[in-house]
Amino acid sequence: MKIAMVGLGKMGGNMTERLMQDGHEVVVWNLTPEPVEEYAKKGAIPSSSIADMVKKLPKPRVVWLMVPSGKPVDQNIRELKKHLKKGDIIIDGGNSEWQDSQKRAKGLESSGIEFIDCGTSGGVWGLKEGYCLMYGGNKKAVDHVEPIFKTLAPRYGYLHCGPVGSGHYVKMVHNGIEYGLLQAYAEGFTVLHSAPFDIDLQAVSKVWKHGSVIRSWLLDLAERVFKADPTLSDLDPYVWDSGEGRWTVEAALHQNVPAPIITASLIARIQSRDSDSFAMKTIAALRNQFGGHAVKKKADDGK
Amino acid sequence: MKIAMVGLGKMGGNMTERLMQDGHEVVVWNLTPEPVEEYAKKGAIPSSSIADMVKKLPKPRVVWLMVPSGKPVDQNIRELKKHLKKGDIIIDGGNSEWQDSQKRAKGLESSGIEFIDCGTSGGVWGLKEGYCLMYGGNKKAVDHVEPIFKTLAPRYGYLHCGPVGSGHYVKMVHNGIEYGLLQAYAEGFTVLHSAPFDIDLQAVSKVWKHGSVIRSWLLDLAERVFKADPTLSDLDPYVWDSGEGRWTVEAALHQNVPAPIITASLIARIQSRDSDSFAMKTIAALRNQFGGHAVKKKADDGK
Repeated sequence: MKIAMVGLGKMGGNMTERLMQDGHEVVVWNLTPEPVEEYAKKGAIPSSSIADMVKKLPKPRVVWLMVPSGKPVDQNIRELKKHLKKGDIIIDGGNSEWQDSQKRAKGLESSGIEFIDCGTSGGVWGLKEGYCLMYGGNKKAVDHVEPIFKTLAPRYGYLHCGPVGSGHYVKMVHNGIEYGLLQAYAEGFTVLHSAPFDIDLQAVSKVWKHGSVIRSWLLDLAERVFKADPTLSDLDPYVWDSGEGRWTVEAALHQNVPAPIITASLIARIQSRDSDSFAMKTIAALRNQFGGHAVKKKADDGK
Repeated sequence: MKIAMVGLGKMGGNMTERLMQDGHEVVVWNLTPEPVEEYAKKGAIPSSSIADMVKKLPKPRVVWLMVPSGKPVDQNIRELKKHLKKGDIIIDGGNSEWQDSQKRAKGLESSGIEFIDCGTSGGVWGLKEGYCLMYGGNKKAVDHVEPIFKTLAPRYGYLHCGPVGSGHYVKMVHNGIEYGLLQAYAEGFTVLHSAPFDIDLQAVSKVWKHGSVIRSWLLDLAERVFKADPTLSDLDPYVWDSGEGRWTVEAALHQNVPAPIITASLIARIQSRDSDSFAMKTIAALRNQFGGHAVKKKADDGK
């Protein structure tokens, strides 16, 4: 079918390519013009504005948003609302908060524009291996765009989770679980790295891929990581979080679900960015007060 | 080759079968006679005692122990020591503590009996899919028994990790990681189960298997679990731990490695067995003391 892709970053660009490889026509638009030209050369249909993009689509128009969550999604929906009509479909394929998706669907209701919230997993590997898609929305709308889901996903890799909001909810939990899995492997590899033996982390991650209970796709990636650099000496121990972990923790608290390790995994990331911890300085100062325990002054290590 | 298997439980029994399927001869012994008869019918060579078992082996004798960790391992090694000679090989394939394995190897040193500690992963699926094997020991000894490792493991599924102790050390960390992975999925599925949408946990675990970042063998099992019983209504929320999680936490502390989520996963299991928590009763009582907050008496729910 013929659809529009708004946002040609790593994800949107690769998805455009995967769609074209399977015979779909993709009208592309991006905030900066360079990616539009790049994908036009690869066979996409370029557009000069949202308005121009919408004109190039057959009815009902289908627009896939692949932009950063938050304001960029709202801005694009506001602009799209001016040009789309009843029955047209907007899919937000980014990592939006599920409650925002519900609000956005509500805001489009009076115009008759359909809204689908679609969680998209697969990262930079999705172009080749397909993207796992979890989406929410009205049955009629999701059925209409199924050919798109079918192309983007591997076999069995797409699911209509329920009403609007449920797609991003399931993707939020997916990412929350990912926080825990990454932290579990990370802690384990550190206990190996600090072992009283000289353990080859690449060899261990490789052997675990074959028959062990903890084999997984993330473990496949671990083998690649430790093959490239067994000591990770070039990296700073600094990890971002992009929202879904926090939202999973918030949902857990709101629903009275104890989620200690997803919470602790999020906290570990927040700590990783704090090389000047006020809390640890407070503990050091208090230990000094009550027990005369030595404190380490900044000058001690030459800073 | 011809080896002995001591212990015909779920693991030892299936391993005997996998060895025989690949043409090895297996002399079997077990504390109770019934499994010996059972595996004799399947083609194993029965034995009436450890002494009898050793007599039926060619030199150097290779004995695989697959018995519960702790005393049963020591008892069997003590008995084997009476009958084995210099150059014979004992493999402990169970979940022994790595430091115990080092002590046992030390205890055998003067007799010249070789000791290999082998972590074995794969559970009840190992018979069909093969066991992931991580072992430590002298190169000469592990090279001699490689045909056995090759049969038991899937392709690429066995690794000589280093000296004695390193095999069980790597298996310990493997299981520690497993604690974290299980807890991460469990928390995620609970956030889904308590969601403001009616989410089909089997369908979600199935879609995540295809292209998502969190696909894994444990997730494959989750799909089977939720297919059989989406609400888990027949189960008590009671989880055992069998040692490796504790040892991983101890190793982490000993080596000054922060392992918050493996630790928290272990604590969650310990909590799961405490339906009459003294700590929670203490908090309830203290809240009542300082704030007059209501406490729930046992009689309140009819107990």
